Amino acid sequence: MAETGIRELKVELGDRSYPILIGSGLLRQCGTLFKERGFPAKSPILLVTDAAVEHLYAGTVEQSLRESGYAVARAVVPSGEKSKSLTAFDDLITAALEAGLDRKSTVVALGGGVVGDLAGFVAASYMRGVRFVQMPTTILAHDSSVGGKVAVNHRLAKNIIGAFHQPDFVLYDLDTLVSLPAREVSAGYAEVVKHGLIWDAEFARWCGDNAERLMRLEPDALGRALYEGCRVKSIVVSKDERENDLRAILNLGHTIGHALEAVAGYGELLHGEAIAIGMVGSARLAAKFGYEASIETETESLMRKFGLPVRIPEAYDTDAIMAAMMHDKKFSEGNMVFVVPTAIGTVEIRNDVPAVWVREIVESLKGESVRR
Amino acid sequence: MAETGIRELKVELGDRSYPILIGSGLLRQCGTLFKERGFPAKSPILLVTDAAVEHLYAGTVEQSLRESGYAVARAVVPSGEKSKSLTAFDDLITAALEAGLDRKSTVVALGGGVVGDLAGFVAASYMRGVRFVQMPTTILAHDSSVGGKVAVNHRLAKNIIGAFHQPDFVLYDLDTLVSLPAREVSAGYAEVVKHGLIWDAEFARWCGDNAERLMRLEPDALGRALYEGCRVKSIVVSKDERENDLRAILNLGHTIGHALEAVAGYGELLHGEAIAIGMVGSARLAAKFGYEASIETETESLMRKFGLPVRIPEAYDTDAIMAAMMHDKKFSEGNMVFVVPTAIGTVEIRNDVPAVWVREIVESLKGESVRR
Repeated sequence: MAETGIRELKVELGDRSYPILIGSGLLRQCGTLFKERGFPAKSPILLVTDAAVEHLYAGTVEQSLRESGYAVARAVVPSGEKSKSLTAFDDLITAALEAGLDRKSTVVALGGGVVGDLAGFVAASYMRGVRFVQMPTTILAHDSSVGGKVAVNHRLAKNIIGAFHQPDFVLYDLDTLVSLPAREVSAGYAEVVKHGLIWDAEFARWCGDNAERLMRLEPDALGRALYEGCRVKSIVVSKDERENDLRAILNLGHTIGHALEAVAGYGELLHGEAIAIGMVGSARLAAKFGYEASIETETESLMRKFGLPVRIPEAYDTDAIMAAMMHDKKFSEGNMVFVVPTAIGTVEIRNDVPAVWVREIVESLKGESVRR
Repeated sequence: MAETGIRELKVELGDRSYPILIGSGLLRQCGTLFKERGFPAKSPILLVTDAAVEHLYAGTVEQSLRESGYAVARAVVPSGEKSKSLTAFDDLITAALEAGLDRKSTVVALGGGVVGDLAGFVAASYMRGVRFVQMPTTILAHDSSVGGKVAVNHRLAKNIIGAFHQPDFVLYDLDTLVSLPAREVSAGYAEVVKHGLIWDAEFARWCGDNAERLMRLEPDALGRALYEGCRVKSIVVSKDERENDLRAILNLGHTIGHALEAVAGYGELLHGEAIAIGMVGSARLAAKFGYEASIETETESLMRKFGLPVRIPEAYDTDAIMAAMMHDKKFSEGNMVFVVPTAIGTVEIRNDVPAVWVREIVESLKGESVRR
C-alpha cells in the first residue's frame, strides 16, 4: 500500500462489528465519513475532548461535521485522569441534554484514553446507549479504542463504574500524533509491542527492527504499528468480548505494572513505562518456569529500543508493591495469577505462581542499576 | 395448578434468558434458590432496598441467604423517586466496594420500581456488569421486572442515564403485596390490564371478570394476573430487546399519561392512574380512526372496575399537557406518534395522528365530570 494510504481494520463482533480507519488527514474528512455511514443529520452530535486537545483539533472536526450538515455541541473536560469521574460524567449528560441529543445521536471522543473512557461511558448510558465514535490522539489509545471497555473511576477504585460499549467506528488520524511529547510516544509503544509479545513474534521483532522510524513517527511505520497492534487486540477481543478468559492475556506486564503505578503515585510513572518494567518481570517469571532465558533478553532489548524503563526505581518499597499486587483484580481466590510468556509471541495464564518468586523478581529488578 | 403453587415464566432472550418465579413464601427460600442456580458463595451480595420495605422484608431475605452460606451487605435508600439519582447510585457503588463485591457478585433489588431501576443500574455498571436479582414488592414492578431497562434520573430528564441489563432471575413473592396501600394496588393493575389490552383480549376480559378478587389480592388470581402480565411483556421484549420498534406498543396510554404526570407535579397522580386516563384517551383516538366505539366503552369499564380514574382533572391546563406531549420521546421528527387500539387485545403504532385530534380528546376528557 501507498505511504499515504488509509488502512482499515474490521473488529469482528457479530452485529457489533466496527471498522478502525488509520491514516493521515482523517479528521478533516470526518463529516463525509459520518454521512457515508448513514449517521442521521437531524440528530445532534456531542464532541467530547479535553483542554489540551481542544485547541489543536476540535475546530477541524467541527468544521468537517458542520460542512456535512451535522449540528455539533462541544464539551471540554480538564486534561488528565481526574476527569474520569462521575462528576465529569454528570456534566457531560447535562451537555448532551442541553444540546438536544436523541436516541439516534452520536457521542464523539476526541483525545486519549481518559476522554475515550469517559465519553464512551456517556455514550453507553445516555438514553441507555447511543452511537459512539472514537478519534484517538495518542498512541496508547490504540489499545483502548479496541474492545469496548469504557469506565470512570470511583475514589476507592479505578475503572469500577463502566460498561462494554463498542464504537460505531474509530478514526485514527496519524497527524494528531505529532503533538505527543516524546515520553508519551515511548509509553504508547509499550502497549503496541505488548501486542506483538502476546500473539505475533514477527510483529514484535518488526517493532524492534523499526524502532527508530517508529520513534520518529514516520507515517507508514506508525500506521503499520497501530494497525497490527489493533489487529492483535481485536482478534483477542473478538474471541472473548466480555472478558471471561482469553482476554486476560492482554494483561501481560500489567500485574506488576499496576502495582508500580499504585506505589509510584499519580503521574510519576506513565502506564506504558510501568508495564514495560512489568513485561521484563514476566519474562523473568518465564525463566523460573523453565522457558528460554532469551525471552527476557529479547523483551528487555525491545523495551530499551523504545526508551522504556526496564528496572524498578530503588526508592519503591517492595512490601508496598507486593501489597498492591494482592489487591489486583487478576488475583482470584487467593492464588497468584500471572500472564507468563512461553516464547516471544505466545503467553500462558498461570494461576500457580508462588508469591515468593514474584517478590524475588521485584527485588532483583530493584537491585540492578536503572539503565535506560 | 394448586392455589399455593409457584408459577415459573421464562423470559426468552437467548443467552440472557431468565426465569420469573411467582408465588407465596419465596423470599424465605431465596438462599436455596441462589445456591441451586450456582451463585458462588465466596462472592458477597449487595441487598438494595428502601426505607419503607427494609423493616418488612430485608431481614427475611438476609437470613435465608446467610443460611445458605452467602455474605450479604444491606444498602438502604430513601423511599421514592428522588432516590433514582446519580448521588444514590454513587453511594451504592461505594457500598458495593466496601462490601468487597467482585465480578461474580450479585446485586439484589428488594422493592418497587425505583429500587429495581436504581439497583439494576448499579448491577449493570459495577465492574462493567455483575449478576442482578429482582425481588419486586409492588404490582407495578411486574412491568419493570421484565425487559432489563434500568436507569436513574437527571435533573433535566427522567430515566436518561441507564442501560439494558437483564436480571439473572426474578422472585415475585405474593406475600409482600399485602402491605401495599389500596391506591397503589389499583395503579399497579393499570399496567397489568394494559398488557391484556395490547396483546391478549381474553386476558384483558379475565381481568375485568376477576377485578374484585384481584383487588382483594386473592393469591391465585393475583398470581395469574402477574404471570400473564409478565408473559405478554416478555413476548414483546423477546422480539425487540433493544426497543427498536415492536416494544413501542408497551407505551399504550403513556403519551397522554406521561404528559399528565408532568403537569400534575410529583406524587399527585400515580403512574398507573395517569396511564389509565391515557388508555381511555387512546381508545377515543381509535374511534377517530374509525375503529369500533366499543373499544372505548370497554376500556373505560375495565379501568373503573379497578378504581382507576378515567377523566383528566379539570384544573390541568390543556396547553401545558400538549406542550409536555411534544417533548415526549415517542415523538420523532415532528410527527405525533401514538399507540392506538384497533380492538381489545390489539394495537397499532400510528405516526399520522393530527395534534388537533389529540387536543380535542384532552379537552373532552376534561370537559366531563370525573366519575371514579
